[in-house]
Parts: sequence; C-alpha cells; structure tokens
Amino acid sequence: MEKIPDIAFSSRIRLARNVKGYPFPTVDDHYVSDIVKPVYQSLNKLGRFHLYHMGKLSALEKNVLREKHLISTDLTNHQSGAALISEDERISVMVNEEDHIREQCLMPGFRLEEAFSVLDKVDDALSDKIEFAYDTRYGYLTSCPTNVGTGMRASVMLFLPALTMTRKITAVIHAVSRERITVRGVYGEGSSAEGAMFQLSNQISLGNTESEILRHVYDTVLKISEAEISARNELLARDELALKDRVRRAYGTLTHAVILSSREFMQLFADVKLGVQMGLLPFQNAGLLDDVVVKMQPANITLMAGRELSPRERDAYRAEYVSKALLSLG
Amino acid sequence: MEKIPDIAFSSRIRLARNVKGYPFPTVDDHYVSDIVKPVYQSLNKLGRFHLYHMGKLSALEKNVLREKHLISTDLTNHQSGAALISEDERISVMVNEEDHIREQCLMPGFRLEEAFSVLDKVDDALSDKIEFAYDTRYGYLTSCPTNVGTGMRASVMLFLPALTMTRKITAVIHAVSRERITVRGVYGEGSSAEGAMFQLSNQISLGNTESEILRHVYDTVLKISEAEISARNELLARDELALKDRVRRAYGTLTHAVILSSREFMQLFADVKLGVQMGLLPFQNAGLLDDVVVKMQPANITLMAGRELSPRERDAYRAEYVSKALLSLG
Repeated sequence: MEKIPDIAFSSRIRLARNVKGYPFPTVDDHYVSDIVKPVYQSLNKLGRFHLYHMGKLSALEKNVLREKHLISTDLTNHQSGAALISEDERISVMVNEEDHIREQCLMPGFRLEEAFSVLDKVDDALSDKIEFAYDTRYGYLTSCPTNVGTGMRASVMLFLPALTMTRKITAVIHAVSRERITVRGVYGEGSSAEGAMFQLSNQISLGNTESEILRHVYDTVLKISEAEISARNELLARDELALKDRVRRAYGTLTHAVILSSREFMQLFADVKLGVQMGLLPFQNAGLLDDVVVKMQPANITLMAGRELSPRERDAYRAEYVSKALLSLG
Repeated sequence: MEKIPDIAFSSRIRLARNVKGYPFPTVDDHYVSDIVKPVYQSLNKLGRFHLYHMGKLSALEKNVLREKHLISTDLTNHQSGAALISEDERISVMVNEEDHIREQCLMPGFRLEEAFSVLDKVDDALSDKIEFAYDTRYGYLTSCPTNVGTGMRASVMLFLPALTMTRKITAVIHAVSRERITVRGVYGEGSSAEGAMFQLSNQISLGNTESEILRHVYDTVLKISEAEISARNELLARDELALKDRVRRAYGTLTHAVILSSREFMQLFADVKLGVQMGLLPFQNAGLLDDVVVKMQPANITLMAGRELSPRERDAYRAEYVSKALLSLG
C-alpha cells in the first residue's frame, strides 16, 4: 500500500469536552472568557498559540480559517466563540462551539496515531487547569449523544477519483456506514462530490476506547484505499487512452483558462491530480497540489488578492493562479 | 478591409462546359476517352497535368482528392469519370461529372479575378480543340439550367466564427440569398456549420456577364466580411475576457487532447484561428492553420498514417498531429 499517501492525504483527530459545572450545549457569553483563559494558559505551555475571538474577526478572516479547516462553520456563527490556533496551524482549540471545548489536531498524510498522540498531550494540559464534565460510566459528556464517551472523532481526508468516476463510491459509502463509519463529500455530497475529496470518520465514540476507534478507522481507510487502487487499475485496463485523454485535457484547460469557477476547478483539478499520481502526466510533485485546493477557496483568494473581488474577478484570479501553479510543476 | 485575408481564405472559379454533338447530362462510358484525349492535349500546353481515371483509383485516393476540393463527390461516384489536375493543384478539369467538362481554378486568399483569368486561359485552350455546346441566345448549355449562360460559378471560402457565435449568420444567409448568392456551411449546414467555414457563391449564371458575376460576388464578400468584423468587435466589446477564455481553452484542449474527433477538432480549431486572428493568442502564423484543416480530413489522415486506421486510431492520430502543429506555431 505504498500509494496510501496519494489517497489518504490528511488526518484529523477531534476531542469534544465540556467544563464541569457550566451548562451546555452552549454557555452564556460571559462564561466564555472563564473558559478561554485557562485554555490559553494551558496551551501556551505547549507552544505558541494565537487567540481569535469570533466577535472581533471580520467575515473574511473567519472564512479563511474555516477554509483551512481550522475552525468549523458552526463556530463562525457564534459571536461569543473563540479559537486558539498553534503557530504551525496543526492544533486548534475552539471554545463555545457545539461543546465548550473542541480540540483538534490536523496533519497532512495518513498519520492518525501521531495526530492523536499530539492531541492527547493537549488534552492532558487542558485537564490540568480545567475539570471536564465526565461520567465514570459513560465517559466524557457532550452536547450531542453521538460524541459521548471518548468524545473523539478520527477523520481522514480521502482522494477517491477512480471510485467517483466508476460510481462505485455510493456502494462504498453504504458498506462502511454499516460499520459505523461515515464517508461524505468534502465539497458537495455523495457521488457528485467535487474534487473527489471525501472525509471518512467514526460515527460514534461511545463503547470503544480511543485506540479501538483509531484502529477501526485505520483499517477502513486501508480497505477503501485498496478499492480505490483497484478502481484505478480497472480504469487503466478498460481504456488507458481515454483516461490519459481526460487527465491531459483537464491539464490543458487548467493551464489555459482565463475564467475558472470553483466547481470546474475542483473537478478538473481532481483529474490532474489523478493523472499525476498515475504517471499519466509528466511531472511528479503531486504533493504540492493539495495546497492549491485550500488557496483556491473564495476567502483565501480574497485574502491573497488583498481586496474584495467580484465573483467574475475571483474566477479570473483563480484561473491565473491555478495556471501558474500547475506550470510551476514543470 | 485589411482583415479580408483572415475571412476570405480561398477563391474558386468553376466553368461548366459540354461537348457539341454528345448527349448530356452524362455521356456513355466509351465517349469519355473521346473527351479526355483533347482535354489532356490542350492542358499539357499550359503546364504539367496529372490524369486520374476514377475507375482506376482506390476509394482512398479519390477521397484525398475530394478532401482537397480538387474533385467533387459527384465525380467519385462515376467510374467512367476522369480528372486532370495541375502539378500545383490549382487547376482541375473534371470529365463526365454533371457536365462533360468542369474546369476549376482554386487559389488561397481572396483572388477571384486572378483565378478567373487563369481559368479563362484554360477555357481558351480547351475550346481550341473542342467545340462546346453553345447557344447564341442562352450561352453555354449545361445539364442543369442554373448553370446555363456563362456556366460560371464563383465561390469564396469564408471563415465566419463571430457571425456563427452570435447566431447572426442565419440572417446573413437569408439576406444574400435574396441577391441570388448562396452561403452554406462547408462542413455541416447553417448556423451549426463546423469550423465556421462557409462557401459563398453565385446562384445562377444566366443573364450576367462573367465580370458582372465576379463583381457581384466580390461585393457580397466585402459586405459579409464587414459584418463578420463588426461581430468580432461586438464580441470583444461585450466580454473580451470570455472570448479570451474561449479561445485559450480551445488551444489548451487541442494541444493536450489524446483523442480528438473530427467534429470537435473543427469547432475548437475555429476558436483557435479566431483567437490568432484577433491577437488573443500569442502567435501570429494563422496562415499555416488552413493546411491543418485539409490534412485532418479522414482520407488525408489515412494517407499520412500509411494504412487504414480504426475510427479510434484516427482520433488519436488527429490529436497528436494537431497538438504538434499548434505547438510548432510557437
């Protein structure tokens, strides 16, 4: 399975926690600083963290963080919410999201264990200063029952273009859901997911230990990756020329378009990435491609452009950026 | 009208003649050589001509000549027909097409007068050896009444992408038909003509002298070219970015596709040619493009490939050839 990094391109662990003695789901505004303060103190022992108060951020600033998966859409809607984000943007702790505290570690590649071990230290540091709502029978208590227990959600971002093209993705999603694993499109839903990017995660966190959940997610990722690889081989065997045509046309369009919508970009970019990974396009720096996807989200474009763009201007900016990025691959 | 050569890219004069004393529309097989012989003798005084007997040519050889517009589809179906073609492929004389003799001169660019003057010499040479069926009142007698009189058809090949895109072409075709001028798609019909290539010619040849017909065709070409140029300016004014996007995407696809159908090639190629002519693509050798269109017809591809190709192989050959041809423009 040497091709795993091509398929499982980032890993995320999230822990849901609530503070004992405070009401939840959400706390009143004036309680928030009571929570932010000990969180901030604990985290600064581990490294440099930036504190963002949602009420003080512009819509643009919030959306940039959201597009980088550092905060959730939910948090952007809570004026009283806050996020503490490590300098390297791997660790993020949200305050007053669905739960009082949501700890997250996001890493490129298929590194669930490593992400968990980092987040475990974060959780230890927080629990030094904060008493979490915990039940000896159920474990950590959360706003939503699906998070009770470990409070853990282990997610892996998967690039599944061949399963998407062959429409086998629907059966895969259905099969793993019976094993309490959710797979959903990161951009768009189901088999029409833009960019063939899917997030796989455990459905529930009660009744299993953290390592059991990690193992289950890990095994499922391996299984789906195998399915993706056979789907790729099947595409090659069925009609290599047609596949080459598709990925080369996508490259030709992305390097020449002058106006490029987000949707078209995601679709063609998936083709190019697949082509690179399968050696059908003559350059090998596929790893550089993932960053382009984040950079091409609307708020990130506005940030780079330095001003609010009209949708048309954004599509023109995207076309130029993507063309240059791809041509720089050689 | 310095842009005329971009729009009117080739000119053709055709004269229909029949031999006095022989029945027409078509003559019996054994008469054909009676006609071919004096035609061949006359032509060889003017230059080097090759004689092709339809009955002796393979389907491929006939189709190559047809795709180069040197013989008509009609002639390829007459086993007893023949064609005499000058070394430079500008002059072609068909025997036993719809009329006993069809003389043609085909020249690149907008050169109707010049083509007529060349063909006039051919006609003089032929009439030295052959007595044409001629009526002092009606002029030259022909199989079809629309050719009676001068027997002349003056045609100009027009590249009308902007009129096609803006769908104004239908109104143009309608307007000129009232002035007894026919405009029709060279590949495909009407407003969906592939490659935006149209042939303009006079409808009837009776009641006007050759120079009157030439003048009328000439003036109509100028009028349509003006309409095409304003349609181009309108496209630019309306949305230059969208136009640039379209022509650059077409270039990107044609330089990267691995499988390319004839239909898609014609459509995208028209966009590229328009882009070159309007300075929206960074190379200026648009003149080289016209040859590619002839070379990419099915029989010409088979000829270059050196063997019969499957439709799939032909589409792959076309993709490779077009990509190389375009990249060689710089």
